[in-house]
Amino acid sequence: MLTNPAPMNLLLDSEAVNRGLRRVAGEIVERHRGTRNLFLVAVRRGGIPVATRLLDWLNELEGPVPMGTLDITFYRDDAATALPNPRLGPSDIPGSVEGSHVIIVDDVLYTGRTIRAAIDAVMDYGRPQRIELAVLVDRGGRELPIQADYVVRHVDIPQDQRVDVVSRGNELSVVTQPFGSPSIPPEAP
Amino acid sequence: MLTNPAPMNLLLDSEAVNRGLRRVAGEIVERHRGTRNLFLVAVRRGGIPVATRLLDWLNELEGPVPMGTLDITFYRDDAATALPNPRLGPSDIPGSVEGSHVIIVDDVLYTGRTIRAAIDAVMDYGRPQRIELAVLVDRGGRELPIQADYVVRHVDIPQDQRVDVVSRGNELSVVTQPFGSPSIPPEAP
Repeated sequence: MLTNPAPMNLLLDSEAVNRGLRRVAGEIVERHRGTRNLFLVAVRRGGIPVATRLLDWLNELEGPVPMGTLDITFYRDDAATALPNPRLGPSDIPGSVEGSHVIIVDDVLYTGRTIRAAIDAVMDYGRPQRIELAVLVDRGGRELPIQADYVVRHVDIPQDQRVDVVSRGNELSVVTQPFGSPSIPPEAP
Repeated sequence: MLTNPAPMNLLLDSEAVNRGLRRVAGEIVERHRGTRNLFLVAVRRGGIPVATRLLDWLNELEGPVPMGTLDITFYRDDAATALPNPRLGPSDIPGSVEGSHVIIVDDVLYTGRTIRAAIDAVMDYGRPQRIELAVLVDRGGRELPIQADYVVRHVDIPQDQRVDVVSRGNELSVVTQPFGSPSIPPEAP
């Protein structure tokens, strides 16, 4: 029996992503001009292509900015509760966090639990003067009082929909589709 | 020699505070209607009179809601850095945090560091389904990507100004004045 394919909606095409990240890079430069100790920390894995594109624009506007990564996954330690705990994987922080301005970069902001774990992880490395958050999509649905400082697109996405960032070469786009749909195949090597 | 007294500006009179907290209570009831496990957690000491007034309105609209308290102070462990660390004092959480909806209540939202410590403190007691934040004044100046869900007044206050909540009997008002001004005397016993 044939079923209709799950509907996939294009939320941001690569041009919209590029334009949005260029705007965000401009906002970052404006706010942090003259800061000696500014760096990005990308949340693995979704934040990495976003941070990489953002760095291209920052380099053009301001010069090189270091990038680190954090690896945050969630595990369930107790079958009786549905709420997972964050687990920190291998992280890579480029230089001293002490007194720095850190911009955490992720693809999608949803419940805020990943970002809360990322803030804690950054602060485990030292005491930054400021931590900000940049995301491609703020999809609503927060469970913690976390906000992004830089957002390419705010849009309320129903709980039964997933937001996927599609990476093709240097181009990113964003689609929404029902949970349970097959993942976007990873880029061919 | 006479000097001019430090200028003190009334930001919210008691009527504005009352009206604002009644609105916030309505928003809380609307969002959490039917939640069995909702409670407030006031940040000592400034959050307590705010949470107490808020509870009056919640009781009127919805029935009794339990209130707990968190005691968060900051200490400097290292003379070389200016950034203090949070220290958690005696806390009092009314019931199980597991699966609950917790609303942290404070008087003024500024850098976000107190609230970040409060979120961590609540999560030390268990895994709430949702944590929200209610404040009387969001004065801007954030150093962490924290936002309030319920705010009586958003206003950008210059760094050299302090925001004080004045409590007289059951009435609260909010003033701003330069740092270094004498504190508002506490209510007479």
